[in-house]
Amino acid sequence: MMYDMEKIKAELGSGLRDYLPADMIGRQIMLDKIRQVFELFGFAPLSTPGLEKEEILTGNDPNFKMQIFKTRLQQDEDLALRFDLTVPLARVMVQYDNEIDKPFKRYQIGSVWRGERPQFGRFREFMQCDADIVGSATMAADAEIISLMSAVLSALGLNRFLIKVNNRKILNGLSQYVGFDPDKLVIVLRVIDKLDKAGWPAVAEELVTAVGLQPDQLEKLKKFIEFKAPNQSAALAGIRELMANSEIALQGITELEQIIKHLKALKVPDDCWTIDFSVARGLAYYTGPVFETILVDFPELGSIFSGGRYDDLLSRFSNNTLPAVGASVGLDRLFAGMKKMGLLTEIATVTQVAVLNFDQNNESYCEQVVAGLRQAGIKTEFYLGKETGLKGQLTYALKKDIPIVVLAGSTESERGVVQIKDLRQHEQTESTLAELESKIRTILDR
Amino acid sequence: MMYDMEKIKAELGSGLRDYLPADMIGRQIMLDKIRQVFELFGFAPLSTPGLEKEEILTGNDPNFKMQIFKTRLQQDEDLALRFDLTVPLARVMVQYDNEIDKPFKRYQIGSVWRGERPQFGRFREFMQCDADIVGSATMAADAEIISLMSAVLSALGLNRFLIKVNNRKILNGLSQYVGFDPDKLVIVLRVIDKLDKAGWPAVAEELVTAVGLQPDQLEKLKKFIEFKAPNQSAALAGIRELMANSEIALQGITELEQIIKHLKALKVPDDCWTIDFSVARGLAYYTGPVFETILVDFPELGSIFSGGRYDDLLSRFSNNTLPAVGASVGLDRLFAGMKKMGLLTEIATVTQVAVLNFDQNNESYCEQVVAGLRQAGIKTEFYLGKETGLKGQLTYALKKDIPIVVLAGSTESERGVVQIKDLRQHEQTESTLAELESKIRTILDR
Repeated sequence: MMYDMEKIKAELGSGLRDYLPADMIGRQIMLDKIRQVFELFGFAPLSTPGLEKEEILTGNDPNFKMQIFKTRLQQDEDLALRFDLTVPLARVMVQYDNEIDKPFKRYQIGSVWRGERPQFGRFREFMQCDADIVGSATMAADAEIISLMSAVLSALGLNRFLIKVNNRKILNGLSQYVGFDPDKLVIVLRVIDKLDKAGWPAVAEELVTAVGLQPDQLEKLKKFIEFKAPNQSAALAGIRELMANSEIALQGITELEQIIKHLKALKVPDDCWTIDFSVARGLAYYTGPVFETILVDFPELGSIFSGGRYDDLLSRFSNNTLPAVGASVGLDRLFAGMKKMGLLTEIATVTQVAVLNFDQNNESYCEQVVAGLRQAGIKTEFYLGKETGLKGQLTYALKKDIPIVVLAGSTESERGVVQIKDLRQHEQTESTLAELESKIRTILDR
Repeated sequence: MMYDMEKIKAELGSGLRDYLPADMIGRQIMLDKIRQVFELFGFAPLSTPGLEKEEILTGNDPNFKMQIFKTRLQQDEDLALRFDLTVPLARVMVQYDNEIDKPFKRYQIGSVWRGERPQFGRFREFMQCDADIVGSATMAADAEIISLMSAVLSALGLNRFLIKVNNRKILNGLSQYVGFDPDKLVIVLRVIDKLDKAGWPAVAEELVTAVGLQPDQLEKLKKFIEFKAPNQSAALAGIRELMANSEIALQGITELEQIIKHLKALKVPDDCWTIDFSVARGLAYYTGPVFETILVDFPELGSIFSGGRYDDLLSRFSNNTLPAVGASVGLDRLFAGMKKMGLLTEIATVTQVAVLNFDQNNESYCEQVVAGLRQAGIKTEFYLGKETGLKGQLTYALKKDIPIVVLAGSTESERGVVQIKDLRQHEQTESTLAELESKIRTILDR
């Protein structure tokens, strides 16, 4: 079907990104490692579609403010693109309740979409890797998630990261401790969250205007915020004393103490996690421990691996309850951050051997060599480009950083041999077809 | 944020599907195998977003009829969900022209969305796995794709499949051969495509009413359609003679002969492919060889792996041209087909070892065992459920088909040992912590 029209500009919408092979090969390796660790911890994969019914995502909540991508299709249901993998998990737990044994340890790796203003490391479509334990109320589960987070980041080659652990129950206890209306808690937490950027005086002022806190109340809050202790057990003991008037806070502290015990038994390295009473996590649905993770050398990137306990997971769909805890790593932000920090090197190719193709009459022989190498599990490319001469084809292989080329002209095919060129060591050897695989493996293993 | 409202029904939109772990574990294995073979053939991964600008997808073509999911977001660009991975590839080739060396062998695995009427094996969101060679005009490239298709399907454990190969140039030659207006070709092909279902008399009648073919023209067309030969070389020779008046058809036949030569050199098994002059492939953009694949025992499923040469890939975006050839496997249709044929067994878990947790005072010892097993690379789950007794926890492990459980009560921890229960062989042995890994590996390797 031919039609004449202006050419369309080849470009992406804002906040969207491509991964060309030089980046995608490395990103794929990251994804594989994350999956491996998820499975090492006994999480099984789940897949749900990107498109969900709109009300599944919004919960018909008049206060729903997330910018989601709604789709239209004539005479059809209202669908929209998921903005996280947690809401679909909740739907799955209710929809397939009878089929799913609890506790259910599942991981899901998939794209999510949010119509946010794009900025560094923030995309409108990005990949989340989530692991959650549904149907377990014990703090051992929360510790498992933290242990998993630590293992995933280590597997990705990161060592300078810090998982900050807090408990929403301690924050929920602030209204009792300070003495303000519990309904104002969300506002108070949102204001406190600006502390790093705005500083205490501005935060205090906003707390007065927005919530009407009195000077003595501000003083109490400041005491909590600025609370410091020489070590974690002293910190927990100190906060326990400070917030002794709040039952819910005390419960949160006890939970953190349990988590610490489990983390030690699980041999999670001490230097990769800490208790941090300032961590709130924006999402309203957390009900217990919360986690976020910064790269020590790039804290501005924000949290790269976050989660917590959300025991009201099912409430949108069911009167049943199931406790749940989990965490999510935003792969694309982490990738952008690691790339900026120089922690990722581009990998130009997956190809291990390129068989060149400079002798038209000898193509079939070359193809036999190609087929044999692939049969042996060696990633092999047959040169299919425009260059007809040896030099041009070698340039292609060098440019693509392919480690080995195999040459087979008519002088080789007559004798049943090939030339192996090790492009890294600049060495060339002749090989019979029988020896070819082992000679190439030797070079690849160098 | 609490709000009172009716519970929302946990369900999916029509034509969408979930994969619970029992299916997803197997689907993931399929995906990994496909990726492995793609890389074995020297294809590198590419990733592009699901959302593209609407005009990228439609080409602003007034005849564009595909039902795509358009998204709306206030004051924003018109975006829509991709319906294949080929249009994004074309965009990428133009957008990053300078960064991409040719020939460019890329694979992409990702979801696509089409607002089609759902039916068996046809979903509105499904995963495509594409491999394409861009920038190569040689028939060696087409043969590589066919070889790849064969290798992928074999890796998936299929042996009874048939890759049907044709050349659009032969079909394009029909207008010369039969003698009708070339502009009518698309209609003629579309009518012929109904042959299997409607039979010749109905097709002939439609050809008369829709294109106005005369009896002698119908006769010529019928001769082509019903052409049979005892073997492939006789078939090609016969068609060469039949269509001798069409230069374009002769060119197509020569190309098929070249492909056959390459397939033989590449050692693609003879019984997995065939030349079939009836294969048209619906998409208008194919310009040369076309491929489709049926499962011999389930032909009604339709083509599960299709492709061909499309040398006008870039035309929407650029006046430059780049020849291209590739193929795409629809994973979800294939999965549905294989499942229906009983070729897929459900895999209930990824977990290799469950460490039970029936002695509250001994949790830390159990967690040490868990950490040690994971350290050794054994996929290990720590029991985190509600059952507090041994029996209930064993039932969980049996139901999830976990092969091994490890028991460690206080009598074990005091002596630094654990009990290993092989749930398949119904055997129990004691092990020290030092021997645990090797004993478990022995059981797993049985």
